[in-house]
Amino acid sequence: MPKATNKPTILITNDDGITSPGIRNLVEAVKDLGRIVVVAPDKPQSGMGHAITIGHPLRMNKVDIFDGVEAWQTSGTPVDCVKLAVDKVLHRKPDLCLSGINHGANHSINVIYSGTMSAAMEASIESIPSIGFSLLDYNYEAEFAPARHYVHQIVGSLLTRKLDKHLLLNVNIPSVPMELIKGVKVCRQAYAKYQEDFKERKDPHGKKYYWLTGAFVNFDKGKDTDVWALENNYVSVVPVQFDLTNYKLKAELEKNWKLK
Amino acid sequence: MPKATNKPTILITNDDGITSPGIRNLVEAVKDLGRIVVVAPDKPQSGMGHAITIGHPLRMNKVDIFDGVEAWQTSGTPVDCVKLAVDKVLHRKPDLCLSGINHGANHSINVIYSGTMSAAMEASIESIPSIGFSLLDYNYEAEFAPARHYVHQIVGSLLTRKLDKHLLLNVNIPSVPMELIKGVKVCRQAYAKYQEDFKERKDPHGKKYYWLTGAFVNFDKGKDTDVWALENNYVSVVPVQFDLTNYKLKAELEKNWKLK
Repeated sequence: MPKATNKPTILITNDDGITSPGIRNLVEAVKDLGRIVVVAPDKPQSGMGHAITIGHPLRMNKVDIFDGVEAWQTSGTPVDCVKLAVDKVLHRKPDLCLSGINHGANHSINVIYSGTMSAAMEASIESIPSIGFSLLDYNYEAEFAPARHYVHQIVGSLLTRKLDKHLLLNVNIPSVPMELIKGVKVCRQAYAKYQEDFKERKDPHGKKYYWLTGAFVNFDKGKDTDVWALENNYVSVVPVQFDLTNYKLKAELEKNWKLK
Repeated sequence: MPKATNKPTILITNDDGITSPGIRNLVEAVKDLGRIVVVAPDKPQSGMGHAITIGHPLRMNKVDIFDGVEAWQTSGTPVDCVKLAVDKVLHRKPDLCLSGINHGANHSINVIYSGTMSAAMEASIESIPSIGFSLLDYNYEAEFAPARHYVHQIVGSLLTRKLDKHLLLNVNIPSVPMELIKGVKVCRQAYAKYQEDFKERKDPHGKKYYWLTGAFVNFDKGKDTDVWALENNYVSVVPVQFDLTNYKLKAELEKNWKLK
């Protein structure tokens, strides 16, 4: 970490787009903690997962929409934004990358679909400590004051520690008034997911099309999960890794699986 | 697993699109092992990661391009295809989901960006045992015979076992003649990745745009990784999980991280 006299460079991105209230609140929340640089998508990119743009080129333009903060919008995905920021804006790795504040939950299995978390994971892969923040409220008029408080507290606290270069946290904040939040809880990812139910419609020419919808179901009864923490008004912090190897299954296959 | 008299239903998808040689070779490789149903994107979707389509509706049409095999093309991502297949085509979970054969490697960190592996992971989340296959050759005229052999061997062998409902394997096949392949090796995911280098161009109006390019770098010297296995002409099999919790960091934060 940089010395007190040398403020850390904090890269900020998101997946709801650079004009969303969530990213504005994130910038405001950490403005006093470092030199902030924003590189974010020029349009909403929710549900983009870890998508990258290979088949066509990217545009990037400087914008002046955050008071006194350097900001760039790109035509790419959240992951593209992190890559562009390092290679073409900062020309170095920032000290920390923050993504969000997402409008809506990214707990449980949603970490995998989330553009917010994929941007943070991309930074972690690039050896940049990184945190994704999400507020459990899809509303653009959501109340962000409690979220700002906890973002500042968590980022401020981490900046006093020596951070692992691959540190990656998934932070979700309940959408309740400040006085109801019980504190911060380190959790594991719940096995909870959406049960798909595509809605079938017909276009004016009689041809079918489908809308993805679904109901959220928690299959995980543990009290150490992010879903449990959020249901009980805690801020959930799930440490995340990008090594997806299933070591238990690896050992089992090595022992028992003989190919004919 | 279904009994011998009751052939398993095998869902096949990919990310290179339903007309690619890779998916055709996958269908051919396992046709005798079950009832095959193909639900795949109507266009290439490489690098889509775990993207899903939320903001606009999906189209799906039956196509007759595989000899005697039920097949549907969709306007969605690989993950959308798995969701649509379960909810609108099969109206039940298949016994197995296969994704690929991808044109190009999906080893190491590429598992995270890969549409091929994201489709397989989606199935695994849905409690469908699943395998993603990739051949280390981007060429559409690639030689698929060795890949077909190993696909048949691996799928055939797994169908004789009781499979965990979340089983998820990332299989990569070296692009060398059959006689040079040394066998199948169960591995862990290497820490190897692309070092980004965006190429800057100017459009006819003088405005900049950027192409994502990069060089592959292996930071992982282990001999138990997928990259090592492939470099040594083994077929690599990495067991994959969708619980991204970093339990080591979780224990450390629970012990040492006191928020002010």
